[in-house]
Amino acid sequence: MNGAESLVRTLTAGGVEVCFANPGTSEMHFVAALDRVAGMRCILGLFEGVVTGAADGYGRMARKPACSLLHLGPGLANGLANLHNARRARAPLINIVGEHATRHKRYDAPLTTDIEAIARPYSDWLRISAHAADLGSDAADAIVAARSEPGRIATLILPADVAWTEGGAVAALPPIPSPPMPASATIDRAAAMLRADLPTAILLAGNALLEPALTAAGRVAEASGARLLAAYSMARIERGAGRPIVTRVPYVLEQAAALLREFRQLILVGAGPPVAFFAYPDKSSALTPEGCETHVLARPGEDCAAALDALATILGASPILRRVQDFDRPAAPSGEITLPGLAAVVAALLPENCVVVDESMTSGRGMLAATKGAPPHDWLCNTGGSIGIAMPMAVGAAVARPDRSVLCLSADGSGMFTLQALWTMARENLAITTVVFANRAYAILKGEYANLGGGPLGPSATSMLEIGRPELDWTALAKGMGVPGVRVESLEAFAKALDAGLRSQGPYLIEVPL
Amino acid sequence: MNGAESLVRTLTAGGVEVCFANPGTSEMHFVAALDRVAGMRCILGLFEGVVTGAADGYGRMARKPACSLLHLGPGLANGLANLHNARRARAPLINIVGEHATRHKRYDAPLTTDIEAIARPYSDWLRISAHAADLGSDAADAIVAARSEPGRIATLILPADVAWTEGGAVAALPPIPSPPMPASATIDRAAAMLRADLPTAILLAGNALLEPALTAAGRVAEASGARLLAAYSMARIERGAGRPIVTRVPYVLEQAAALLREFRQLILVGAGPPVAFFAYPDKSSALTPEGCETHVLARPGEDCAAALDALATILGASPILRRVQDFDRPAAPSGEITLPGLAAVVAALLPENCVVVDESMTSGRGMLAATKGAPPHDWLCNTGGSIGIAMPMAVGAAVARPDRSVLCLSADGSGMFTLQALWTMARENLAITTVVFANRAYAILKGEYANLGGGPLGPSATSMLEIGRPELDWTALAKGMGVPGVRVESLEAFAKALDAGLRSQGPYLIEVPL
Repeated sequence: MNGAESLVRTLTAGGVEVCFANPGTSEMHFVAALDRVAGMRCILGLFEGVVTGAADGYGRMARKPACSLLHLGPGLANGLANLHNARRARAPLINIVGEHATRHKRYDAPLTTDIEAIARPYSDWLRISAHAADLGSDAADAIVAARSEPGRIATLILPADVAWTEGGAVAALPPIPSPPMPASATIDRAAAMLRADLPTAILLAGNALLEPALTAAGRVAEASGARLLAAYSMARIERGAGRPIVTRVPYVLEQAAALLREFRQLILVGAGPPVAFFAYPDKSSALTPEGCETHVLARPGEDCAAALDALATILGASPILRRVQDFDRPAAPSGEITLPGLAAVVAALLPENCVVVDESMTSGRGMLAATKGAPPHDWLCNTGGSIGIAMPMAVGAAVARPDRSVLCLSADGSGMFTLQALWTMARENLAITTVVFANRAYAILKGEYANLGGGPLGPSATSMLEIGRPELDWTALAKGMGVPGVRVESLEAFAKALDAGLRSQGPYLIEVPL
Repeated sequence: MNGAESLVRTLTAGGVEVCFANPGTSEMHFVAALDRVAGMRCILGLFEGVVTGAADGYGRMARKPACSLLHLGPGLANGLANLHNARRARAPLINIVGEHATRHKRYDAPLTTDIEAIARPYSDWLRISAHAADLGSDAADAIVAARSEPGRIATLILPADVAWTEGGAVAALPPIPSPPMPASATIDRAAAMLRADLPTAILLAGNALLEPALTAAGRVAEASGARLLAAYSMARIERGAGRPIVTRVPYVLEQAAALLREFRQLILVGAGPPVAFFAYPDKSSALTPEGCETHVLARPGEDCAAALDALATILGASPILRRVQDFDRPAAPSGEITLPGLAAVVAALLPENCVVVDESMTSGRGMLAATKGAPPHDWLCNTGGSIGIAMPMAVGAAVARPDRSVLCLSADGSGMFTLQALWTMARENLAITTVVFANRAYAILKGEYANLGGGPLGPSATSMLEIGRPELDWTALAKGMGVPGVRVESLEAFAKALDAGLRSQGPYLIEVPL
């Protein structure tokens, strides 16, 4: 058995069943091993941002890692932006980067790059495999790193000769460490704060927005009167009818500050203190109100669910959560396309257990409020601010959960960064309905321009913020990659197309001109 | 004047007239300054690989730098792969990367990344600007770095507060250092080698493949009987009828070795020793034949033209080059599409002074031989092996040389990495005819798979190397981005479409199914 085969066998034995890949010459032995080892589904992306974004979406929905397979420094470079988002999501991910054969590096061949230097800032764990005999155990260590709470990016750099050399050995998986429990004094302090008669918010992020932590947080809120907030950069939240009521901190600085202003106490669970996305002249970057006491109940990587559960017990919370979101959704509206109308259509039609992947940017700001009473569903967001994640993440989510339909909400500007994901949707016949909000602009930047005191927009600046000249034809782009699509001109047409897409059990694209 | 305005003014005063950009919030003050300063053409790319690839193409054709404008770590990450190619091409390029305001970094906001860490391996010069008052002189230093021979990547990291703070000052450009001349003993040694009666090759790369170095190399070859070779990874070569005869070292290891085998002496001008692109088990990475003496006449950054000219004088070469390529091109063939037929059509129709951007991979391997006797033209190649450069580079070449037509030869697999460049072609109405060789595969990898001893291709491996399921429809993709296109099914249809595209003075795409 060569190194590559020992790697694939160790991965599959360790529960890694999916590989998102864009391989090149250096990774051919890994590719060859796929035909000798059962149990690894390998999915091609035509650009590496698709590969890493899909692995992120898979990790968020499967709660276990897929691996990515990237070609040398350039392949890694192309995957970095969505790897950044994955790391900020604390998604579990095993990132395998092919490297030149060890003896080839000194020749400074054209593709030679410092892979370690660019991988390091995006990796929680990193190793350059040195010997075929050790590759199996390197892979096992990578799995443990990726699967440790709350989910980590484990990068394994794989020189071609380590892959092709005989002497590989499948390694057994070391135990995966359990997340540590916060100290009891930490939990007691939170309880004391929640018993004080002060306006208090519990800010959740990461796994604290998923079951079982979510219900435990709901019980704490119910018992204490505290309000549950979700960090703006939330990786995934389980929400909708019957679930605890959680309000997301808005993107816009003034709106976030207005939401937070009333609180005198802030308890953080898997979240950092709230901060502005960007800095603005004469505005503070910190969003915690002055005089508000902040307490960390559980850090990312600590056992958020157990900490919340212990806190609920101390507070004498009811074991059964009663204060949950009511089922409440509108009938689908008709008429001219408006942003509230689009949100209402989504709210009216969202299927139970749907996975919503949301990078709708300015166009989708009303979506969360509109859909709060829809049947239970998952909502996945861009956690790192690197745009171009929605379509790749939808691919990964659909692969992880073939039992669910996926609704991908994408802005046009962000969608263009990784539109190659549409091809993978078609190739794998994934049940993904992609809605492109085509406002023909980087609309968010127009707001930022004003916020930053840029003054009136001149023609040069305007040309950097508008993408409508020429107009992108998303149905043609989708057709070019094998995805059927339609452009809609009214809310009823949108509703009809959305219903058709969600029922189709395959990929479908809806362009919504705004 | 704020920092951003001093930056733009210093750039334009220093001859930097074009900015390829995909800006975000942190770069809004740079964007705002564009409306206050004349002389900077700002061109939007919908993905950063387009931005850096275009800046590379511009630098190669203008022989002076454009600047790129990228948004924070993720924007830089998306631009790295083509920045790698640009660095390997030794293209002059000023790479401006926006950064969070200095005081914002400690909040670890979602987009915070270690920009310096990932920029460093791709930059010959790097500075983080610290004060608005110094930004003008930082920019001037970046210009000097980028314009120093043979062309360098100068990365300027620009915190938002440095851009928005008042107190900026336009800086005068320090002198740009002249490239040093190799020692006379080095030139004498080359002359002695060329006078010996041994088979000798002169391997050229970088600026040695451009005038005036190219003709000087031709005179040396004429006087000595040496053969002129171009490195496989050549950034740009001036070639065609009336130009010196230069043979490119092939990509395929065995073919390269066969070409080089006969030589006992190798003189390097702006080139490193020839090496294999990849390592293979049981094959040497070095391509210099055993027992062949290698001599470096001029390193990259030394004055290759002056060194070759001095060498020609020592050898008593004729001042006028006589041994040049004859004008010789075929009539356009007709019939079924074949690779030699496609190459013959290109050879038959190539306009004088055309700029050919070539990332045709396996499909275009006959192109150089077929076009050697066409009217004089330029040929630009992928220098770093990171695929997805052709369409972006064509954008930059067309912006640099609006007096010429650009022919972009792209494989389908590589084209998909940065297809967003088509939109910029349409927006700027650039005279670029893009030919996509649609073999529906990463065909080069099939060869590599065999070379690496992968054995017979199983279904899993095959699915990683073939991209024809579903078939990409390139005319639909082009239409989606505002570029007219056609699919051709015969050589006469290809000739007709190529002629129409080259005459159109705008963007045009031809899909050639193979």
